[in-house]
Amino acid sequence: MKRSVIRELLKLTAKPGIISFAGGLPAPATFPIDHVRSAFGKVMDEEAHHALQYGPTEGDIRLREDLVRIMAREGIEVTSDHILVTTASQQGLDLVGKVFFNPGDTCITGSPTYLGGLQAFKSYQGVPVGVELDDEGMIPEKLEETIAGLEAEGRAPKFIYIIPDFQNPAGVTIPNARRKRILEIASKGDYLIIEDTPYRQLRYSGEHQTTFQSMAPDMVLSLYTFSKILLPGFRLGWACGPHWLVDRMVMAKQAVDLCTPPFNQALTHWMLVNGALEEGLIETIALYDRRRRLMLEGLDREVSDIPGIHYTRPEGGLFLWLTLPEGMSADDLFQKAVDKNVAYVPGSAFYPNNDYVRSMRLNFSYANEEQIVEGVKRLAGVIKGNM
Amino acid sequence: MKRSVIRELLKLTAKPGIISFAGGLPAPATFPIDHVRSAFGKVMDEEAHHALQYGPTEGDIRLREDLVRIMAREGIEVTSDHILVTTASQQGLDLVGKVFFNPGDTCITGSPTYLGGLQAFKSYQGVPVGVELDDEGMIPEKLEETIAGLEAEGRAPKFIYIIPDFQNPAGVTIPNARRKRILEIASKGDYLIIEDTPYRQLRYSGEHQTTFQSMAPDMVLSLYTFSKILLPGFRLGWACGPHWLVDRMVMAKQAVDLCTPPFNQALTHWMLVNGALEEGLIETIALYDRRRRLMLEGLDREVSDIPGIHYTRPEGGLFLWLTLPEGMSADDLFQKAVDKNVAYVPGSAFYPNNDYVRSMRLNFSYANEEQIVEGVKRLAGVIKGNM
Repeated sequence: MKRSVIRELLKLTAKPGIISFAGGLPAPATFPIDHVRSAFGKVMDEEAHHALQYGPTEGDIRLREDLVRIMAREGIEVTSDHILVTTASQQGLDLVGKVFFNPGDTCITGSPTYLGGLQAFKSYQGVPVGVELDDEGMIPEKLEETIAGLEAEGRAPKFIYIIPDFQNPAGVTIPNARRKRILEIASKGDYLIIEDTPYRQLRYSGEHQTTFQSMAPDMVLSLYTFSKILLPGFRLGWACGPHWLVDRMVMAKQAVDLCTPPFNQALTHWMLVNGALEEGLIETIALYDRRRRLMLEGLDREVSDIPGIHYTRPEGGLFLWLTLPEGMSADDLFQKAVDKNVAYVPGSAFYPNNDYVRSMRLNFSYANEEQIVEGVKRLAGVIKGNM
Repeated sequence: MKRSVIRELLKLTAKPGIISFAGGLPAPATFPIDHVRSAFGKVMDEEAHHALQYGPTEGDIRLREDLVRIMAREGIEVTSDHILVTTASQQGLDLVGKVFFNPGDTCITGSPTYLGGLQAFKSYQGVPVGVELDDEGMIPEKLEETIAGLEAEGRAPKFIYIIPDFQNPAGVTIPNARRKRILEIASKGDYLIIEDTPYRQLRYSGEHQTTFQSMAPDMVLSLYTFSKILLPGFRLGWACGPHWLVDRMVMAKQAVDLCTPPFNQALTHWMLVNGALEEGLIETIALYDRRRRLMLEGLDREVSDIPGIHYTRPEGGLFLWLTLPEGMSADDLFQKAVDKNVAYVPGSAFYPNNDYVRSMRLNFSYANEEQIVEGVKRLAGVIKGNM
């Protein structure tokens, strides 16, 4: 196993004075501290013995019922036995790997895709096979081609892993029409879709697209997390999907950590009851929207005149994806950028085969407004100085 | 993957009026509620943004330094880079499985041993091979034999998994002399020992034995948990061992859950600083010692006259192990016991091959004093009524 590229980069980028667009951290200003306090009071006064004890592997039934209601708002009508509380969505990916992979089994991912997904799948000796994206996400024709190729080799994929909303790292969103097309392709081979959608609630412009799950409940498992919409420090997420699969994940989870911290689940339940999610989202969306616009305006001003440069214009989420002109490498540029006190994640980290080096991921949720303006200037200087 | 036998049993034993010796839950009366409150105040007043954010995969450095000090009290002199904070010790077992196993690889375990260990190893298609125990734990001659057999077949074990103190499920402890003998056997083949010791601090009588790790730091990885000595609802434990192995576990953990909840780690750090562990252990030990004595007295009174019956006399931990006379089956007796409103875990659950049915595990930490006396009476009635 290779040590996570991102985590190692984050250490590099901890140098003082640096402006980092490298991580994927939410802004601490969005953490609902007052809600944490009042939920804690409630839990300790009324159910401390319960919250500090072991709990069921499936998760606190009250939290699962809360999640049923949250899913219903997405048009997903399920009961609580379709929902598993996970130790954040990274565990959802790990459980998917555990349930599906024997060494050498393949799956489809975006190329690029979330690094943590690649790591989770590879840790079970699964083999991610990448499908190219464009500004509307995974390209259906390429998906069809890749599946046909794998089937011809007798290596049909175990599932198709997709991040449909504000994709990490590319920031792109799959429009409804393309979602339908992808579902058609998947259903031809009876392939399951793993819909990983940690940023779905963070939309700043454009129209909400429909979830894969609401279009095809029997063939989609969706992974969610509270990390980006409430706070990450509790490590809480959930999986929602067909009961047979959720049930297999529950069994797998028993061997992994017995249960997700019941204390954190009880706190989150009361925070949800008290409206922390809806309240917080309004402010979080406003904040990230400002930061996104500042970053895009900065790029428009500073680098859009460079021939061959391209960057995505995300309608939500935390990231955008900048592609350098032909012949340049974001890997090579990285150390130079750090020397000039600005950091990003080289895009090669997000490819199943680390083979594409022209892009970089830029995060706009963590740095503050002033840092975003200044950081984009520095980055533009580094790019222009090394062409 | 089979659904956990214990978790399914626990559901069965939730019927009203039942006295359950089946679970392995700590008594809620031992939870340090006041310490949780004051640590929470500290964390929210002074470091909320930090505690509610993502944290390092290795764990909060302050907690790791606390654990360095806790290890030092055991005669284990390490630095923090020998310590990994885990999402309780079940995750330690999962990471061991992930790091070591390719499908079909073997490891040595006690027979019986902790069910969660068997599940973790089997989930990576590892093959646990059991070595018989007696009242002093794993029998060295049997261990030697088993290793020789595996080596002869070209299936040398990846490691030896041992629960040396108040073993789950048998309640037995390996004396120092036998520990040395086991280490000699292991070192001949250069085999790593995984020392799982969740109950070590819960000794009620007899003398502390030396940890495997302090005897052979380079060949032992030890797994600990706060679940039984502080509270389980935070899901916090740690692994301590050779740096090369801890480092590989850190890499594996990145793909599993990124990090253990930083919030729970910050709370626990301040609880440790404030003395919650030492204070709590005094009361916990007194409580469990009373319960253990009541259970043993009850068994001495009610069943010791049954020819061929045997039960262990644990000097600590949460469990004792009762073996029925030849010809009886704890599996068969289970439903009858539940009908009479008393429950245990059939011992077959703890064998790598589920092949031994004469024993049962009895927990004495969770039921209160009155329930223990009455439960043992009921159990004796069931045994005597079915001979």
